[in-house]
Amino acid sequence: MPETEEEPKDTVSPPEEPGERSFVRLRRPRDGESPLAAQPELHERVSGRKPGSKFLRLTRRGEQKLRRVAEGEYEVTRVGSEPASGMGRVVAKVRHAVIGETLASSQLSHQRLSKLKALAIFSSDALSSSAYATEEILLVLVLAGTAATAKAIPISLAIAALAVIVVVSYRQTIKAYPNGGGAYIVANENLGVTPALVAGSALLVDYIMTVAVSTAAGVAAILSAAPSLHDARVELALLFVVLITLGNLRGIRESGTIFAIPTYIFIFGFGGMLAVGFVKLIVNGHIDAAPVEHQVEGGAQALTLFLLLRAFSSGSAALTGIEAVANGVPSFKPPEWKNAATTQMWMAIILILFFVGTTVLAHQIGVLPSESKTVVAQIAESVLGRNVLFYIVQASTVMILILAANTAFAGLPTLASVMAKDSVMPKQFAFRGDRLAFSNGIILLGLASSAVLVVFGAQTHKIIPLYAFGVFTAFTLSQAGMVIHWRRHREEGWRRALAINAVGAIATAIVAVIVAATKFTHGAWLSIAIMLVLVAVLWRIKSHYDQASRELGRGLAGAGGVAEHFYVASAGRPQTVIVPVEEIDRAVLRTIAYARTLSSNAVAIHVTDDREEAEKLRQKWDESIPDMPLVIVESPYRSLVEPIVAYIEGLDRTQPNQMVTVVLPEFIPKHFWQRFLHNQLALRLKKALANRQNTVLVDVPYHLTH
Amino acid sequence: MPETEEEPKDTVSPPEEPGERSFVRLRRPRDGESPLAAQPELHERVSGRKPGSKFLRLTRRGEQKLRRVAEGEYEVTRVGSEPASGMGRVVAKVRHAVIGETLASSQLSHQRLSKLKALAIFSSDALSSSAYATEEILLVLVLAGTAATAKAIPISLAIAALAVIVVVSYRQTIKAYPNGGGAYIVANENLGVTPALVAGSALLVDYIMTVAVSTAAGVAAILSAAPSLHDARVELALLFVVLITLGNLRGIRESGTIFAIPTYIFIFGFGGMLAVGFVKLIVNGHIDAAPVEHQVEGGAQALTLFLLLRAFSSGSAALTGIEAVANGVPSFKPPEWKNAATTQMWMAIILILFFVGTTVLAHQIGVLPSESKTVVAQIAESVLGRNVLFYIVQASTVMILILAANTAFAGLPTLASVMAKDSVMPKQFAFRGDRLAFSNGIILLGLASSAVLVVFGAQTHKIIPLYAFGVFTAFTLSQAGMVIHWRRHREEGWRRALAINAVGAIATAIVAVIVAATKFTHGAWLSIAIMLVLVAVLWRIKSHYDQASRELGRGLAGAGGVAEHFYVASAGRPQTVIVPVEEIDRAVLRTIAYARTLSSNAVAIHVTDDREEAEKLRQKWDESIPDMPLVIVESPYRSLVEPIVAYIEGLDRTQPNQMVTVVLPEFIPKHFWQRFLHNQLALRLKKALANRQNTVLVDVPYHLTH
Repeated sequence: MPETEEEPKDTVSPPEEPGERSFVRLRRPRDGESPLAAQPELHERVSGRKPGSKFLRLTRRGEQKLRRVAEGEYEVTRVGSEPASGMGRVVAKVRHAVIGETLASSQLSHQRLSKLKALAIFSSDALSSSAYATEEILLVLVLAGTAATAKAIPISLAIAALAVIVVVSYRQTIKAYPNGGGAYIVANENLGVTPALVAGSALLVDYIMTVAVSTAAGVAAILSAAPSLHDARVELALLFVVLITLGNLRGIRESGTIFAIPTYIFIFGFGGMLAVGFVKLIVNGHIDAAPVEHQVEGGAQALTLFLLLRAFSSGSAALTGIEAVANGVPSFKPPEWKNAATTQMWMAIILILFFVGTTVLAHQIGVLPSESKTVVAQIAESVLGRNVLFYIVQASTVMILILAANTAFAGLPTLASVMAKDSVMPKQFAFRGDRLAFSNGIILLGLASSAVLVVFGAQTHKIIPLYAFGVFTAFTLSQAGMVIHWRRHREEGWRRALAINAVGAIATAIVAVIVAATKFTHGAWLSIAIMLVLVAVLWRIKSHYDQASRELGRGLAGAGGVAEHFYVASAGRPQTVIVPVEEIDRAVLRTIAYARTLSSNAVAIHVTDDREEAEKLRQKWDESIPDMPLVIVESPYRSLVEPIVAYIEGLDRTQPNQMVTVVLPEFIPKHFWQRFLHNQLALRLKKALANRQNTVLVDVPYHLTH
Repeated sequence: MPETEEEPKDTVSPPEEPGERSFVRLRRPRDGESPLAAQPELHERVSGRKPGSKFLRLTRRGEQKLRRVAEGEYEVTRVGSEPASGMGRVVAKVRHAVIGETLASSQLSHQRLSKLKALAIFSSDALSSSAYATEEILLVLVLAGTAATAKAIPISLAIAALAVIVVVSYRQTIKAYPNGGGAYIVANENLGVTPALVAGSALLVDYIMTVAVSTAAGVAAILSAAPSLHDARVELALLFVVLITLGNLRGIRESGTIFAIPTYIFIFGFGGMLAVGFVKLIVNGHIDAAPVEHQVEGGAQALTLFLLLRAFSSGSAALTGIEAVANGVPSFKPPEWKNAATTQMWMAIILILFFVGTTVLAHQIGVLPSESKTVVAQIAESVLGRNVLFYIVQASTVMILILAANTAFAGLPTLASVMAKDSVMPKQFAFRGDRLAFSNGIILLGLASSAVLVVFGAQTHKIIPLYAFGVFTAFTLSQAGMVIHWRRHREEGWRRALAINAVGAIATAIVAVIVAATKFTHGAWLSIAIMLVLVAVLWRIKSHYDQASRELGRGLAGAGGVAEHFYVASAGRPQTVIVPVEEIDRAVLRTIAYARTLSSNAVAIHVTDDREEAEKLRQKWDESIPDMPLVIVESPYRSLVEPIVAYIEGLDRTQPNQMVTVVLPEFIPKHFWQRFLHNQLALRLKKALANRQNTVLVDVPYHLTH
């Protein structure tokens, strides 16, 4: 690439003609004179072809990278925060194009939500389950014949009762944790690390499954209205996940209004459909079922208790998302906990009405699950006919399901950041990305849920069995944590509160066991296995961070309240510096010059299997650099790296516990492939020295122009 | 891993209990006292958990790694030449188990060969082509019907005439290049770089094809005797290549005797078979052809000149390897060139007898090519019957073919090492491996020929069209180079010599054109394309090395005859050292202590997006390390690496052309996966600083125990 910019003549000497005898004949410094002062050109000559060109390019554009704030205090500008190098710049540009310009940390908003907006934001996950919960119950019951589907109504009522218990129980959490009380936080504070890790794992799996199930159900709703897309089920689901992931990387904040519209369309649309259905039922006495293909045929299994419990397990997915309000208490307008509790109550009422209403109506119309059309779509078509209203209900169902998936994209990354701050997830999850979102958590969730969708072919009923166990495990640990909380704190009315949470904990624990037992072979085993592995992984991560922090002596000052007083020695003894030398060339001379600025105790070492060549080098060396010792190591087995290591080990013997610094030139060719033309001694030395405590390897870069 | 060795109490203090308040409260040094002298423990404390343990382990085993030879001169022992680290040690052990113990450079043998042994070593490549050359001619002629195969005899005579021309021409090369005159060397000396690169590429391709063709033909000979192995053709061929590769990595040297036996078995076996055949022919007037399956049927093409030339091209593969002697002149006993020339003559005579003899006998018996049995095998069976003699001929044919492949394994690596020394191949090809063989060249040849065998299904007749063009290109360039040589040197009799080489060059050039034209669509296009690509690649490699060498000012002293006089400045101005600091912990303190031994001008830099946290750090800093400045850079866009780069760029402005050294701790966890739990600032900084001339990055390793 030709350099188009002109270098001003006064700062930069023209590059030397390569191949000429261009070494500078430098004079020796006078007594007492600094050698560098005697040779002002040296640094420039040995430091490469175009000193300062970077600096010139910088000012020419006139962009400031650092702003001085005070003595020793600076602020980086946006330009200064972007990578300066070629490839990094390209990557950054692509990223900006896709997810938008980088935002400053100060732009993080802390908006407070009214109850009406909060209901819209927090309820999408819970309400959206009305779109598939009834169908999941029917899919199990129909195994015992079409008549058995009548049992869906008592099952849905049992689930509604469970919902009441859970909501009442969570009301206590909202009150006790005004800063947000997810299952992980409550378990961590009250039950200890292991239950917290279990709760955290359960929640991580949950969020992933929420995205997978909601997307799959959303796609099913689309396919009900547009059967021609039937073959693109997985592709459609992945498309949605990618769009939601990108949207969240752009930083869709909980801006309320945008989320409120589709949620209320859904509430009124779905609610309206149910209302019309019941009115028609009462007026006409019956509703004719719309025609449907691929209807599931009734099976011949016995209607055992196990089958009923299995249907109950499937339906219990309706409760997912019911805890969302508890995480978000700080977003409410004051009095926060009261507004949150009220919102949660309304959410629960709507959820129960929708879920039970759908189940009753499905039974009255006589709808059965089908491959090609969801139960809700069949009800909508039967009640409303295949007209514009039908499409509105379907469209709003799709939207609420996508919003539910989106909720998980707010939830998992936030949870991961909390866990990362607690050192149970990799630190990287605690950093906010360009758009102030927790990018790594978002990407993780996008990838994991895509994987689930691909593995299970984006079929809701295949993913559901993996879903509920995690949800109820988290519920149980959260409520159990509250029980301990009340025992410890004994605030006013703690006995009553404890009783409520205990009921909640027991009820959800029973459901968790039922789900695990009845769904085990259908996929629950997999989610249990994943959770166990996750717990083990998180445990190891935590143990590593804890150990590292202890070894590094972190947090001592903070814990003791008094800063420890350190004194760090400054240069006293000179460093031992070793410079491996292959031949005497500009790169080596530059490296030697650098090594000598580090220490007066610098030694060159030459490894060879050719004595004659070594003798020649020594002769040349003695003429050129007489005041620096050269050690020659003959290597009859032609090893290059190991003799240097052996020499350093020898130094250990004469000066134990001393640091040894190895300084060597590293050729940086212009093109990547050219790296393979050099012997990469630096890389090999780094590997060979990796196990040594007290050895520091310093590469002095030498940039080649070709 | 538990440390089983006991640390002596007097050298090593017991490791500190982690998590305790174990920072040392060090006293400030008295006036004039070196800070390190005041704190003898400091280095030990800050340098890690088990100082000196490596050293102890070393002496305990009592193995010496370095032997002192003289002042500043050492020699590495075999133990010192082995990697010391875990993984490297395992790799080395596996390597030793497979290819044997490392040999010292002094064990390189320089054996001289008698003519009898030399004939055995150098002729395998050439003679082995009698095993397939006739068949390749017949395969083309039969396209014009079985009657056309009679033309094989004049074609083989033409090829014999060509062989005479080539041998006579090469006799001149042997005389002029007593140190070995391969096509690359001759072209390089006389014709310039580009022809040399073409010759080099042609030879590289040739060697690869020699291995592929010889192995494929050897396998065909085996299949002729053992048809049940028919489906394992490719696998058998690869097995042979792997065995030959390993054998050569072990360092099969040109030991003569081992190679002489199978060659002479072949010469007498094959020659005997031909003799018996001709005797039987003369006595009985005819020989009945042995029965054979899958015989190729005669085609209906016209017997055009083009087809005859194509057959000629196929047969010209018989000449490959005829130049081998010219490369090996220095291995002969003196007078080297005379002995070499005589050996070459004998080789040519045997080759012509075998090749023409086979062709005539095949015609007389009426043998036609077949899928399942080679032409030679058919002749052997017809002449000798299917008895033990038949198997001896087949076995010796296999052996000579494998020897021919083995010859290429001596040839290509040596050529590559010569080219590497000339900077037209990567330097790595110039190094001898553990067993003194040029390992990288051997591995390259093994891989490349395996690839050819797989791509062409180990079918001789599919690989042959790629073969001859390179051979004749090399011949032509070599002879043309000799023409220039004689013009330049004008030794006694140069006119005659020039004429002979000119005839050789013209003849081989014509053949090269014929081969390219008649085989183009059958595969020659591919070998031409590969050669062109190779030439381009070699050209770029050479250009890179030349440029790098010029930039580095290498070879100046040698070229001038007088050593240049260098003076390299030693420490005058202190280095500018920057220490990025995230928090104050043991790793950072150790890094700071190290940085201060490098320079009195060390500055810490802390990048943050949280002002409050930064203020706390500054407070702690001022209490702990008051005598070192801390720069705080606020990074509102949460970038970590770029602000450090911006700060360094700022330094460029105030002190252009100064080196800047960035010193930072690098955590080295015990397990690889744990790396991902740390933010790898060192790696990211290295990338971001990669384009800067004057910045050196120093990682101070901090080994974590968990």
